[in-house]
This record gives sequence, structure tokens and C-alpha cells, in this order.
Amino acid sequence: MAGMVSRSDGRRPDELRPVRFTRGWLEQAEGSVLVEFGSTRVLVAASVTEGVPRWRKGSGLGWVTSEYAMLPRATNTRSDRESVKGRIGGRTHEISRLIGRSLRAVIDYAALGENTIVIDCDVLQADGGTRTASITGAYVALHDAVEWLRARNALNGEPLTGSVAAVSVGVVGGEPMLDLCYVEDSAADTDMNVVMSGTGSYIEIQGTAEGVPFDRSTLDRLLELGADGCAELTRLQDQALRQVQGT
Amino acid sequence: MAGMVSRSDGRRPDELRPVRFTRGWLEQAEGSVLVEFGSTRVLVAASVTEGVPRWRKGSGLGWVTSEYAMLPRATNTRSDRESVKGRIGGRTHEISRLIGRSLRAVIDYAALGENTIVIDCDVLQADGGTRTASITGAYVALHDAVEWLRARNALNGEPLTGSVAAVSVGVVGGEPMLDLCYVEDSAADTDMNVVMSGTGSYIEIQGTAEGVPFDRSTLDRLLELGADGCAELTRLQDQALRQVQGT
Amino acid sequence: MAGMVSRSDGRRPDELRPVRFTRGWLEQAEGSVLVEFGSTRVLVAASVTEGVPRWRKGSGLGWVTSEYAMLPRATNTRSDRESVKGRIGGRTHEISRLIGRSLRAVIDYAALGENTIVIDCDVLQADGGTRTASITGAYVALHDAVEWLRARNALNGEPLTGSVAAVSVGVVGGEPMLDLCYVEDSAADTDMNVVMSGTGSYIEIQGTAEGVPFDRSTLDRLLELGADGCAELTRLQDQALRQVQGT
Amino acid sequence: MAGMVSRSDGRRPDELRPVRFTRGWLEQAEGSVLVEFGSTRVLVAASVTEGVPRWRKGSGLGWVTSEYAMLPRATNTRSDRESVKGRIGGRTHEISRLIGRSLRAVIDYAALGENTIVIDCDVLQADGGTRTASITGAYVALHDAVEWLRARNALNGEPLTGSVAAVSVGVVGGEPMLDLCYVEDSAADTDMNVVMSGTGSYIEIQGTAEGVPFDRSTLDRLLELGADGCAELTRLQDQALRQVQGT
Amino acid sequence: MAGMVSRSDGRRPDELRPVRFTRGWLEQAEGSVLVEFGSTRVLVAASVTEGVPRWRKGSGLGWVTSEYAMLPRATNTRSDRESVKGRIGGRTHEISRLIGRSLRAVIDYAALGENTIVIDCDVLQADGGTRTASITGAYVALHDAVEWLRARNALNGEPLTGSVAAVSVGVVGGEPMLDLCYVEDSAADTDMNVVMSGTGSYIEIQGTAEGVPFDRSTLDRLLELGADGCAELTRLQDQALRQVQGT
Amino acid sequence: MAGMVSRSDGRRPDELRPVRFTRGWLEQAEGSVLVEFGSTRVLVAASVTEGVPRWRKGSGLGWVTSEYAMLPRATNTRSDRESVKGRIGGRTHEISRLIGRSLRAVIDYAALGENTIVIDCDVLQADGGTRTASITGAYVALHDAVEWLRARNALNGEPLTGSVAAVSVGVVGGEPMLDLCYVEDSAADTDMNVVMSGTGSYIEIQGTAEGVPFDRSTLDRLLELGADGCAELTRLQDQALRQVQGT
Repeated sequence: MAGMVSRSDGRRPDELRPVRFTRGWLEQAEGSVLVEFGSTRVLVAASVTEGVPRWRKGSGLGWVTSEYAMLPRATNTRSDRESVKGRIGGRTHEISRLIGRSLRAVIDYAALGENTIVIDCDVLQADGGTRTASITGAYVALHDAVEWLRARNALNGEPLTGSVAAVSVGVVGGEPMLDLCYVEDSAADTDMNVVMSGTGSYIEIQGTAEGVPFDRSTLDRLLELGADGCAELTRLQDQALRQVQGT
Repeated sequence: MAGMVSRSDGRRPDELRPVRFTRGWLEQAEGSVLVEFGSTRVLVAASVTEGVPRWRKGSGLGWVTSEYAMLPRATNTRSDRESVKGRIGGRTHEISRLIGRSLRAVIDYAALGENTIVIDCDVLQADGGTRTASITGAYVALHDAVEWLRARNALNGEPLTGSVAAVSVGVVGGEPMLDLCYVEDSAADTDMNVVMSGTGSYIEIQGTAEGVPFDRSTLDRLLELGADGCAELTRLQDQALRQVQGT
Repeated sequence: MAGMVSRSDGRRPDELRPVRFTRGWLEQAEGSVLVEFGSTRVLVAASVTEGVPRWRKGSGLGWVTSEYAMLPRATNTRSDRESVKGRIGGRTHEISRLIGRSLRAVIDYAALGENTIVIDCDVLQADGGTRTASITGAYVALHDAVEWLRARNALNGEPLTGSVAAVSVGVVGGEPMLDLCYVEDSAADTDMNVVMSGTGSYIEIQGTAEGVPFDRSTLDRLLELGADGCAELTRLQDQALRQVQGT
Repeated sequence: MAGMVSRSDGRRPDELRPVRFTRGWLEQAEGSVLVEFGSTRVLVAASVTEGVPRWRKGSGLGWVTSEYAMLPRATNTRSDRESVKGRIGGRTHEISRLIGRSLRAVIDYAALGENTIVIDCDVLQADGGTRTASITGAYVALHDAVEWLRARNALNGEPLTGSVAAVSVGVVGGEPMLDLCYVEDSAADTDMNVVMSGTGSYIEIQGTAEGVPFDRSTLDRLLELGADGCAELTRLQDQALRQVQGT
Repeated sequence: MAGMVSRSDGRRPDELRPVRFTRGWLEQAEGSVLVEFGSTRVLVAASVTEGVPRWRKGSGLGWVTSEYAMLPRATNTRSDRESVKGRIGGRTHEISRLIGRSLRAVIDYAALGENTIVIDCDVLQADGGTRTASITGAYVALHDAVEWLRARNALNGEPLTGSVAAVSVGVVGGEPMLDLCYVEDSAADTDMNVVMSGTGSYIEIQGTAEGVPFDRSTLDRLLELGADGCAELTRLQDQALRQVQGT
Repeated sequence: MAGMVSRSDGRRPDELRPVRFTRGWLEQAEGSVLVEFGSTRVLVAASVTEGVPRWRKGSGLGWVTSEYAMLPRATNTRSDRESVKGRIGGRTHEISRLIGRSLRAVIDYAALGENTIVIDCDVLQADGGTRTASITGAYVALHDAVEWLRARNALNGEPLTGSVAAVSVGVVGGEPMLDLCYVEDSAADTDMNVVMSGTGSYIEIQGTAEGVPFDRSTLDRLLELGADGCAELTRLQDQALRQVQGT
């Protein structure tokens, strides 16, 4: 049935856009990846520093946090820089917090030791799904940063308790769809972001009725699409991480 | 079964805290309410101004937006004022945006005409659930502001397409619970906010795994608790709005 | 003679508006009061923290400071939040400083010990005299915070060397008047705030010619009205503080 | 009796410091003066622009406002610049507002026509009394700016309804004194600023008990000293303004 | 002789790093290029908007401006975001202004018509020479944005009066060198940026003695190296622009 | 030949404006000078503090930095204060950094010991060349601050390794000229600032083509004019510093 609906790019409703991970895109970051969900491109850098914020010192526990931003011309029309405006907008704050929470759900702080990993997600080009691409790529960069620490014997065990992936789902023209691109997202009645662990549990769900409120059966169908999409992304992350980097 | 779990304040797992709406708490606002969910107290003011923001002028459509804030000593220890810090924090932004979206889901902009309603939700005392109390109270203040406009023949029809209520749910000590107070919220493994229309459809759901990721059956139980809680809040809103104000 | 002038609310020129103190309005603050001068309502919270700002550490002396703010819809038309504007206005700064100075005039820092008391005065509804209501209420909240410290044996003696009350006076339509409400304040030629100790000495006087400069005899009459008003407020504070709280 | 008290600079208690006005210190400003009260030096510039702020347009009325600031090394130890800190402090705001109010008390807006005069008072060197020196100098610069407008036939009559001068008074070591320098001001129990019209009426009085509250007789003595000081400053302003500028 | 000096990457003193232009890196910008000078990578986007800033309206003249920024992990250790700090640093301002001035030197505003081109230069990876790579890439993006306008018949002639390229030169270990990478730049005694037109004239020169002041003969040698480097960059720009884009 | 060109103030193309140094203009600063280049007047204060910024502590090295600003009415029309705007503009940043770099080029940090000297350059009146007047005056104030330290035996040798002076040069109406005043600067095709040591070496050169790019022979002529101007300024600094201060 899904195959009968035509999407702007010819995908089936339950089909992801082409996903690509280019690990090690930055030469100096402890972990980095250029993640692409179709035309959406996010440069993710994981920066490791010894030590933790003051409020956590001496606890033996590590810390992971994240910042998200968009380049001014990532979108179809240029936006003003938040640095120029002198303040960070609500949307930016909200997404940064979401990415940080999502990653922290799979971190064992004691195993990480008193190290801090900051994950920067900078959207170079935006075509919908920038927050879910960021989370999905952030896990890959986080993984590499953890390996960097492991190679230096700086860990107290395995800090990653699992993997994390995220995807958007939504109802467009009455049809539930996976991984919305910008034109679909703009037309969506309901928009939902699903963040899941590699074992298929929920880390975060955020669903919003853009137009009319949605009922339980729609919610169920979206959750199902999201679970399938996250499972496929988990497979792709795994595949990317199995490749030997730097060869 | 729920009755067997003891909550800090003796409630059943599926029981709301005492909810109180004091309409007209402010003499000058077009709509206002002091809403209480147990010890959580939020002063909501709805301010009507003729005209709309510049980007909407001439459209014939109205606008509804919201701002949320907490007094410095609403909480157990004093927080610095955001005005003194010179910037609004991510949490404040996020909640302001959530309240605005939730209200806009039940607004017919054409019927509102080119009028703007700003809903200020100021938390005077916080004991968990400030965002859901804000949304639930905001609907009441919005309703009164709409009546104020109606009494002045400033509407083009009925701007309210429904009502909106919100409640928090979460898993505490392995048990799904409704309307968490602060100590419960701090101990929750999973925390979810459910915003629903008076007819029982979803306007927004936001669920976060604070500890371990949660599975689908937990999600289903939380959605059910949230739906029941919102239905009860809808009933209480309705009751408050049937009282003749100012007598 | 004063009785012959009609004020908007029927008061005599030398008459205060109804004054009400609701102590313990906040459950968590060490001292708190909802103070009302007619329709002006200020929520005052006194927050105690152990220790003093860095520049005072090791001195054995305590510290008392204050912050004043208005909710956006405290007034007849909504004002933008200072947190949203990203800066605190001159008026807010000025009043915060005035309240702090006024309270510090009755504090013995050595007896307070190295404790800090921050007094937050948030105007929930404004109808003139918000700064004088704030000071008058702030003394009550400060008193309760001091009692809180005393109950914990955290004082080195009696930190309160006296009480403080404040009232506005002004010349409206040629007539000196006490405790101006908003419409009177807007029409005043001369506007003065008088802050006095419970024993009738001056802590601060600020008088401004809004229209034509005023002469010495007007000044004398205003000082007299202010002294009488402060004496009455001192009596009302005393009465409120004699009530056993929490019963 | 006053003559028996020794001041740090040998003055009598009721004696001003040497006061000097250097008019036209700036070549481009419509009015300017370097005013000196002893070692306190303030550069005052009056800038005229055609038109008024938006909220006043079409009213036929002019506008006068003022900004006060201190150079970082005006004082004994260097202070951080407010431009670098990114915000203006409470003291700066308060003094800017005081200067503006004081000048507006002697302005007839209708006679000024829709012209704006901005008075900048920049303290180059501070030795106490910077706000009163600023006001006293500001009147001189304002006067010259008004003459500049008159020479261009841009007035609708005489915009200056009087002159304004200001001086500080205080109680130091139990002795009321006029025009406190920095070391006296730091040691003062009571500190008062008196702003008066050339005809001896009050424009603004601000008195603060720095230590113990003060009684009525002290207040009366300070008001008397301030009135005498302002009268002398009025004479000196008059003398400075009678000199033909630029010769 | 130059060949005898060993550089960290084996280059001759007068040799550029490998330079690469990837035009059209962004799908939505009117002009874009990923420019690489060795490991330095700058993403340049040229955004065209109809109309000009207010102060230029009705003049018939266009406008070109630029903004420069660095991603937080472009460098070896992570830097805080300027958006988070709430203010743009001096270095960022300085470079943005330099890029804008450099481009405006080859623009005929009348031919551009009332169009604005904003050039964003975002450094994705930094290894020295980010400002000169930005300018050199910015010309390429500007060129493509002009072509975009030409294809829409939105020009009044040829807005580009020439091309512009830039390169850094410096004295490292006593030896004048071209196009310093980060380690060379850090060790340089003298550091100079040369911006030149395609015809070999100077648009901007900025030379700084990091250590000891430099004499005229050193300056002459640096100018010569810079001229040769810019000539080579001009050739490479030309070659990149001759390639048919999008095939 | 130069004598044949007429400048607005009658100077020869290679002639400086009258230059004046009034040392000790501030009573409290460790070094200070009012420097005048014609109508351009800059008040320079050098503030000494024991100790260095945190990142330099324990190094045994001193620190010198600078801040530049303009009073709002230094110019022909009033500018908004940067403190009021809440942010420092790019131009201000750029000049502050230039002054700091220029002074640091003649400082031996080890001889300075762990002392910090902050140089504030505040433009009281601007008529072109404010940055070069600032640098030239800053050296004089720096010199006096160093003498102040020497008199207190707080140095580890001679911290000044040379002197520094700066002047602007430019091409106006096709003619290279020295020390441009504002009207010349506004009309200049090419504008250059030259900062040189007292022994005639370059510390910084910044040249900008305001109109058409300039060729090498123009550059050579400007460098020559600048060198002659700096030599003359060095002579005048020397003469000012030979005068016994305070007599």
C-alpha cells in the first residue's frame, strides 16, 4: 500500500533517504563524521578533554554534552548568524539539549572516567531531519572518540552501553511517512522524532500535531515506522563502524 | 494494583494532585488565572492587543504566542534571574515554545481576526509539572481573553476549535504514575508530558528516558495514564469556566 | 482640610490604601510575604544561603541584597520581559538598589554572621507605589528569614537594628497626598519616596519635580505626610509579625 | 563653628571646591563644556538633531535626554569598560536618568520645537560629585545648544524656563559639609544630592543614610547647605555664560 | 636557494600548498565553493537577495558584504562558539571586514544593480591562512553568484571589475616564506597578508612584526613572494571557473 | 613638488599636523597623556597593576594590552555608545588589537616582571588619524608607567626595547599625503597606517585600496612618507619625554 503513494523523491513511505557516513572528515578531532541523510549534511565533531565540569569534579564520573548549529546558508534562504544576533534561539537550544540527552542515555559515566566529550553538530546543508541526522551521526563520532580514549588506556571499562539512532516520521497528505525531507516536513500534519537504542527501546519521542490533533492509531503507525527506520540506521551505523578508518 | 504503591503524598498512581483555578486573579489582564496543581502555582495572564506581528499583517489572521518563566525563588533553592544573566536558558525557551504550539493547535486564526493574544505563564511556586500546569491554565486564560474579544465584537467567528490540557506521567520505582511532583520527577526513570485536546486526541507528546531506555508496553501504559489525566483536567477546566466570573 | 479633596478611590489625602501582609505565601522560602497596598501586589521572597560573596569572605560579616522586577502583565498594558530583551532597564536597576540600601540600613552585619540574604521583590500587579510596597514587605520577609536563622542558631546576636517602612507622597492637583495610586502618580507634579526607620529617622528620601520645581514649604509638608505614613506602616508590620505564622 | 572643622583640602564645611567651566571644549558639538569641581572633570557635549524620537513625532514638542559614563581610569583604580562588559551598570543608568530629569525640569518642549538635544556627560577624572558636576555643566552645554538653535531660527520661543545646578552635601565625622570630594564621600554617614533651579526651588533631592538613619534636623541643615551651594553655582554658571565664546 | 630550507611539509619557501576549489558544494546557494589550501578548508556561500540595506535604497547601487566564522572544532583544540558566548570576538570581526573590503574592491555597484550579495566564509578545518583562503574562495563564489544574476537578467552590466586573490607570507626562522601553515604561522617573526587583484595591483596589505620589527628589505621580499603567490592563485581560480559546473 | 598641492589646512603633502603631548593629564593614572594631532585629541591612560592574567601566572613575564574607544560626540555627528548598544563594534576591536600589538613589539616581558599595564585610549575629539595618534601617545604613557614601576623597584631590567610611533598616509586626489585629517581621509583612494620603531623598522603596516587597487610605486611612495612621518613623531615623543613632568 505504501508503495502507491508518490513522494517528491520517489521513495516508498517507509523508505529512508540514502544515508552516508564519512568518518574522520576532520583530521584533528578525536572523532568526526560527515553524516548525510539525502541532501541533509551534518558535520559532527567529538572533542575529548581530560577532566569534567567543576560541579562533577572528584566524582570519578565523565560527562557528555552536545551543541547543534546551522550555517547561515544551510537552508534555502540565508538566516542571520546567532553569533551576530548575540543570542541562541529557542530551536537551537532545544535541539542541542535533545542530542545531549540522547547520547547520555547510552553512556556509563563511571566507565568513561573523568573525561568530557563534547559533540558539535554543525549543519552544512539542511533538507529536513537535521536533528535526527545529527543524533545518528553523533553516535558514530562518539564511538570513535571512545575508541581514541581506549587506545590511550584512559577508560575504566566500556562507556557505551548501547548505540543510538534517530529518525523523523510524520503524516503527509494523510499518509504516515519515514524520514521526511524539507518539503514533506513543511507539509506534514503531524511531525515526530523518534530516538531509539540499537536494541529497539525508546530513548526519546517527540510528536507534535502541526495541524489537527492526531489519534492513537496514527501515533501507533508512526511509532512502528520510526522503529523500523531506527533499526535500519543502527545497521548502517554498525556497517560504517566496522570499516577500518584511515585506509 | 496502583493503589498498592505509596506516593510521597499518599496519592494513587493514577491520581492527579488537587487542581485549582482562580480566574481573574489579575484585575487588568484580558484573561488571567492562578492555576495550582498541588503546590505548583502558576500565574497565567492573557494579553490581547489589536493587530498582529508585521510578518502577518494584512492576512486577516490572528496570532497566539506564549512566554514561560519562573520566579527566582519558585524552587527550593534560589536561581539567578534570566534577566540578570542577560540570556534566556534552553529550558525556558523550550517550554515557552511548547505552550505556544499547544494553544495554537486549538485556534482558528481566521476567526480570531487580526488580534494577538500573548499568554504569560509565570511560575510563582514550583513542585513539578510546571509546564503542564501552565498549558492547562493557559487554556483557561485564553478562553477568557477570547470572551473579552467576543464581548467587544472583535471576532470573526469562534476562534477556539477545542480545549487543551496537559499532564506529566512517568515511571517512578518501576511504577507508571500520573502528575509527578518534584520528588517523584527527580526519581523518575522515564518522564513524559502529554498534551491533549478535550476530545482526547494528541496535540504533543514528549517522552524521555532519564535512565534506561523504555519499551513499548511502558510507553502504552504512560499514554493511557496521560489520556485519563487529561480527560479529568478537561472536566475541571470546564467546571471552572462555567462559573460566572466576578461574582 | 485634607478631607475636602476627593481622591479617585475616596481616600483622605493623608490616608494609606488598605495594606495587607500574607506571610509565608511561599512554602520553600526562608521568609516570604505577599504584600498589598490596595491593588498593588508584590510577592517578596527572602532566600538565605550560608556564606557571603567572595569579596566579603572571611570578614565575619553577612550580606543583604535585593532584586526587583515586574511581571510582564503587572501593568495595564503588557511590557516586554527584561530577560527577553537581554538587559535590565534603568528603572529596575534603580529600584533594586534602593531596596537593598534601605534594608542594609537596619542590618548589623556582624550579628548576621557570614550568611547572605537575597530579597526578591516581584510585582505581580502594579497600581503605583511598587517600590515602597516592596521595601515595606521586604522588611517583613527579612524579619522571618532572620527568625529562620535564629531557630538554627546561625546568628551572632540580633542582626536587625530596627525596622524599615516606605511610602510615596506627592503633590496632585496642588494637594500633597499620601500613598499615590497609579492614576494619582501619573498626574503628580511632585513625587517623593520616603524610607524611614521604625523610630522615625530617615533612611532615604528621593523627591522629584515632575512638573515645576517645588519650594521648601511643599517639601516640608511632604516629609510630614511621609513620616506619618511610615509610622502607620510600621504599626501594621509589627501587627503582622506578631501573628503566629502557620496557624 | 563650621570653620573649626578641618577638611582634607582645607576648605570650610560650607565651601565649594574651585569650579571651572571651559565652554566650547569640543569644536564640533553644538554645545560643550569641560566642567571641573576641584579634581573632578567632566566633559559635557550637547548634540542637537532635528526631529524627535518616534513616540513623540508630530507632537510639536522637543526632547532632551542625557547619558553619563566614566572613562575606565577616571578613578584611582581602573574599572572595566561597560562596553566590554556588554551591559550598563545600575549606577550609570541611575545617574543618566537623574541628569535627564533635572534638565527636563527647566525645558519648555513646545518652545524647543521638534528638536532633540542629547547631553553626554563623560567623566574624565573623578574625585567625588561627578553627578552634580555633570548636571551643573550640562546646563551650560544645554544653554549653548539652545543658542545654536536660536541662531538658526529653529526655536518657537524660549525653551529654557530657568537654570539648574546641583551639589552634593553630606555628614562627615558628624559635621554637615558641602561638595564632598572622594575621601569625604567615602567616609560620609549621610550623603545627599540636591538639584535646584536658579530661583531656589527644588528639582530633585536624593538623600541616603550610609550608616545610621538621620533625623529631621540633620536633613534641614543639609538642605540649607545645598541651597547655598546651588545658589553659588548658579552665579558661576551665569558668569561663565556671560563670557563671549570663541574670543 | 629557497629549495635548501626545509618546511614542515617539504614545500619550497615560495610554494603554495595544494589548492582545491570544489564549486557548487551547496545545492541551494547562488554561489558556493569548498576551498582548500592544504588542510585548511573553508566553505564559502554567496547568497543573493534582491534589494539593498535601507541606507542604500533608491541609489541604484548594489551591496556586497561578508561574514567569517570558524566551527568550534576547526582547530586542534575546541573553542567555545561565539553564539554561546553571546559576542563576536575581535579577530572574527576583523577578518569579516577584511574579506568584505577585498571583494568590494572589484565590484562595480551600479552594474550590480540594487542586489545584495552576502558571502559567508565558514572555516571547517583550520591549518593557517584561513583568511586568505576565504578571500580567494570568496571570489569564486562571488563570481558564480554574479553569473546566477546574469542568467536572470538582473544585472546592469558587468559588476566584476577584476578578480581578487590573497595569500599569507611571513618570515620563519629568518626565511621569507609563502602560504604559511599553522605551525609555520605560530613560529613566524613577521606575518603578512597580501590581497591582490588579478592584474597584480594591491587591494590590501597587512604586515605585523610578531617578534622584532622588520626592515625594508624584508618587506620588499615578502611583497614579492606575495605577488607571485597571488598570481598563481589567480591562475587556479581562473582554471576552476572555466570548468563547466554541474557536470 | 609636494608643496604645490594645496591641502585643506594649508599643509605640505609631507607635513604632519601640529602635534602636542600633555603628559600627566590625569592625576591618578601611573602614566597619562593628552595627545593631539591637529584637532584629533586622545586621552591616553596607562594603568599598572601588580600581577598578570591567569594564563600567564608564574611565568615571570609581564603583560601589556590596550583598549580604544571614542566618546559619542568625538565626531561631527553623535554616535551611539557601544555600552548602550551592548556590544563593541568591529572597528573598535580592530583598533584596540592594533594598539596592543604595536606596544607589545617594544616590550621585554621578562624585564617587566609579572606586572600588567593596560593602556586606555579614549578619543575625545576625532579629526582623522585617531588610531595613529593613539599609538603615538600610548608609547608616551607607557613610558611614564614604566618609570613609575622603576621608581618603585618593580622591574627586572629595562622593559622598553625601543619606542613606537604611528602615522597615516594616503593617496588623495592622486597625491600621496602624510597624516590625513578627516576630510582628506574620506576622500582618499588608498589609506595606509604605518607603525614604526624609533630606529626606523616596521612594526605594522596596513594599507587598503578604498577605490581602485594601487600599484607598487604608489606603495613605495607611501612607505617613504610614513617612514619620514614616524621619524618626526619619534623626535617629538623624545622631546616630550625629556621634559621634567610635574613642574
